[in-house]
Amino acid sequence: EIETSLFFLSPRITLDLLIIKTSVALTILIKYLRDNGTKMSQDQQAVNGVSCVSKVLTLDTMNPNVRRVEYAVRGPIVQRAVQIERELREGVKKPFTEVIKANIGDAHAMGQKPITFFRQVLALCSYPDLLEDNKFPEDAKKRARRILDACGGHSIGAYSASQGIECIRQDVARYIERRDGGIPSSPDNIYLSTGASDAIVTILKLLVCGEGRDRTGVMISIPQYPLYSAALADLAAVQISYYLDEENCWSLNVEELRRALKEAKQYCKPRVLCIINPGNPTGQVQSRQCIEDVIRFAKEEHLFLMADEVYQDNVYADGCKFHSFKKVLFEMGPEFSSTVEMASFHSTSKCYMGECGFRGGYMEVINMDPQVKAQLTKLVSVRLCPPVPGQALLELVVNPPQPDEPSYSTFMKERTAVLAALGEKARLTEETFNSVPGITCNPVQGAMYTFPCISLPQKAIDKAKEEGLIPDMFYCMKLLEEEGICLVPGSGFGQKEGTFHFRMTILPPTEKLKVVLQKIRDFHLRFTQEFS
Amino acid sequence: EIETSLFFLSPRITLDLLIIKTSVALTILIKYLRDNGTKMSQDQQAVNGVSCVSKVLTLDTMNPNVRRVEYAVRGPIVQRAVQIERELREGVKKPFTEVIKANIGDAHAMGQKPITFFRQVLALCSYPDLLEDNKFPEDAKKRARRILDACGGHSIGAYSASQGIECIRQDVARYIERRDGGIPSSPDNIYLSTGASDAIVTILKLLVCGEGRDRTGVMISIPQYPLYSAALADLAAVQISYYLDEENCWSLNVEELRRALKEAKQYCKPRVLCIINPGNPTGQVQSRQCIEDVIRFAKEEHLFLMADEVYQDNVYADGCKFHSFKKVLFEMGPEFSSTVEMASFHSTSKCYMGECGFRGGYMEVINMDPQVKAQLTKLVSVRLCPPVPGQALLELVVNPPQPDEPSYSTFMKERTAVLAALGEKARLTEETFNSVPGITCNPVQGAMYTFPCISLPQKAIDKAKEEGLIPDMFYCMKLLEEEGICLVPGSGFGQKEGTFHFRMTILPPTEKLKVVLQKIRDFHLRFTQEFS
Repeated sequence: EIETSLFFLSPRITLDLLIIKTSVALTILIKYLRDNGTKMSQDQQAVNGVSCVSKVLTLDTMNPNVRRVEYAVRGPIVQRAVQIERELREGVKKPFTEVIKANIGDAHAMGQKPITFFRQVLALCSYPDLLEDNKFPEDAKKRARRILDACGGHSIGAYSASQGIECIRQDVARYIERRDGGIPSSPDNIYLSTGASDAIVTILKLLVCGEGRDRTGVMISIPQYPLYSAALADLAAVQISYYLDEENCWSLNVEELRRALKEAKQYCKPRVLCIINPGNPTGQVQSRQCIEDVIRFAKEEHLFLMADEVYQDNVYADGCKFHSFKKVLFEMGPEFSSTVEMASFHSTSKCYMGECGFRGGYMEVINMDPQVKAQLTKLVSVRLCPPVPGQALLELVVNPPQPDEPSYSTFMKERTAVLAALGEKARLTEETFNSVPGITCNPVQGAMYTFPCISLPQKAIDKAKEEGLIPDMFYCMKLLEEEGICLVPGSGFGQKEGTFHFRMTILPPTEKLKVVLQKIRDFHLRFTQEFS
Repeated sequence: EIETSLFFLSPRITLDLLIIKTSVALTILIKYLRDNGTKMSQDQQAVNGVSCVSKVLTLDTMNPNVRRVEYAVRGPIVQRAVQIERELREGVKKPFTEVIKANIGDAHAMGQKPITFFRQVLALCSYPDLLEDNKFPEDAKKRARRILDACGGHSIGAYSASQGIECIRQDVARYIERRDGGIPSSPDNIYLSTGASDAIVTILKLLVCGEGRDRTGVMISIPQYPLYSAALADLAAVQISYYLDEENCWSLNVEELRRALKEAKQYCKPRVLCIINPGNPTGQVQSRQCIEDVIRFAKEEHLFLMADEVYQDNVYADGCKFHSFKKVLFEMGPEFSSTVEMASFHSTSKCYMGECGFRGGYMEVINMDPQVKAQLTKLVSVRLCPPVPGQALLELVVNPPQPDEPSYSTFMKERTAVLAALGEKARLTEETFNSVPGITCNPVQGAMYTFPCISLPQKAIDKAKEEGLIPDMFYCMKLLEEEGICLVPGSGFGQKEGTFHFRMTILPPTEKLKVVLQKIRDFHLRFTQEFS
């Protein structure tokens, strides 16, 4: 709670910010002790009562890497939002009647309905007696039987192979082949996972080693999705920040990669380059040319590529298209396709299905040393297997109803409706924000978020410092208290010094999104006036 | 694959065994390259073709901690079992027609049927249209509604709070209170998890720090469940082995704890004591007195207690009873109950439900420093949340049908049948093994495994060395090849030097278990004769 509020990800922390950091820690510590005083009294007394024999596990004696972990998407602002929700339920009067949590890409929580076919199959797998029920379409039953036949004892309650159920890995490989215009994919290279986060952390864990100046450096974009910085802190890896170009629609510039790498070589051993495409939190979709440049750079600099492609179906802007890193890699010829080492990640949590709760996902590893692959298989076996219902869901994502099957038309209708609405909301968001003086916003080309730049008056920045808060945290906290809208401050993702942003999902239903945008607009104008 | 075959967990490795270790590595390496030669040729060529530019990620450049991880339960013998299954499918003639995998506690894979009520509720949660279906009993619908109401957007596809759904944590706390005769439990101390493994690794991660002689030491039993040694290798923590007393039914002796701790203090900083009760792989159930002694020891020596209690419903032997560490701790008075720090782990994978695939579980933390708890909450938030279907299942385990509800009698019938059959199989296993000359077996008081001691003729030990295999691996591999029975060698769990064991689950259906026991009996006699 204390550490989660320390949002700065850039290694270039100025003295100014260090002061903020310390004062934030103190403010939050005081607040924490006050808020939790009553509830924690027993624990506190225990601590006080045995001042000579302290606890085994304290802030001072715990793993320092864990202390350094930060994860803003579920940080203190979200905790305050939950608190406010409780207050509302208890009848406390507020200027609003509900908290709208636009902090996280959680489609179902925002009212998006699950895909009927997927849930029918999951119900059939959970309770196979329903296979006798004629209310369920034949294609749903067929998929359920396929999944159950691949499970130990025909039950999704059995452990699966640690790498994931074999027939599902086969279907994933076929799905990738279709996606990439026939470029071959082998089920042996597919590892199912507990959401994409799990697979990303696993690959990073394999890669990070060395001490001091030999410690593995990992290049991540700024702004980034904070899973990356959190995992690097946990693994005590060196974070190498490269900045996306906000002026050019958050595009990735290879010159900037070069700059960051050169600098980093002085203090660590750069070995990994992480890319998120389509971008989170920035919503850009990389051009084919840019991907080619990045691959060339990775080869030249001998970097392992990690391509986070969980938003691969979420592309809205005209002229934008999703290009998988693997496809581009193979189109660049054997010089690249047989040498550049890569892992690509996908998930059941995003795209049109938004099934976050099932924690389904996979990764494909390419050109991985077979001995390392054996180590990877061993490593994932310690956790036994990814959740089987999530694996079943993934099977449906990669093997959806076909045109000649009874569920096809409903499936397509539902899928198209979700993606079309997201496209509309992406445009609506961009337009509205750009109409507000002091907010500038790149097009949401893809993914599920907007990351607008907000200009904050100097007085607001001063006031934030006074309160021991990072300015965009101060802004978002005030927005939450006054309007009941929960966003994540840009500092939680990293941003160029002196700039301020927030991340908002575009997931609320269109009518609600309009209200949200209007409220943020009003708030921003009021805020600017108050501190001008 | 190479490392997984290096099974030794004891820090006291003799030169002899080191030689075996190296030769195992070489043998398996050669076999690996041969077996995978064709399939991997592309990768291999890539490696060969660019001998000047090696891969970024190789055995030599990967995280050495991961290399040190070993996990026998899914090690090479299981991989060979999978291979044999494939061969059988392809029509290869063997002295048997199916492989019986008694290597892992996977109830459903062994034919155990899921609890009807649980699966009905899961189907209702997956596809809520079924709530209108009058085929489902009212109590199942009631539970499904309770779960859905607690989910974002009433969907199990939404992320939950990172600590787990609040109402489920409340029900877990109430369940613990009932189990422990009213000793209070707070939902704030409950963290839902992705199976118990996830929670165990998370707590270890919080606890491990320091360098050199200050590195955290973690006491684990030998034999142990290899998740522990694997997690310690991964975290580069120091494993402190204490030996269970095979002569006394695998009981835990506090004097042995003292010995192990004293020795360890010379080279690390012991901070954690892990206990598995009922025992895995050893099946003992700890007496109340023994638990009290362990708690007293933990307090005296300032150790954090980790109580792995996932088999808490699996107690079969007359006179044995499960006592939770928490209950005993609180019965020892405030001197203990307000000071000893502890985490207790439970899972949906074992007991009577055996729902391994759902990866449900929870931990309760006791006397944890509130600031550390905040760090724990932050840490689990990085992975977003445990799988929601697993959380839903856990809700049903802690809140099963009540006597006045329609599903009660079926539920109780199913539950009782599973536990009664396990009790019968526990006795059958013990009796049969003890009737075989050269096998001695402690009673299976609880859990799901037997860990008999096998005496191997010197000629067999020599032959094993010759083939570069640890003797009990040699034995189990031969058993697999000749009888199609897959067990885990004792060396995968650790054992006193010079003794040999295997772990077998008692989960196969009674009739099949009888066949398995008979086959092992015949094999053992044949093996003994062959090498005498």
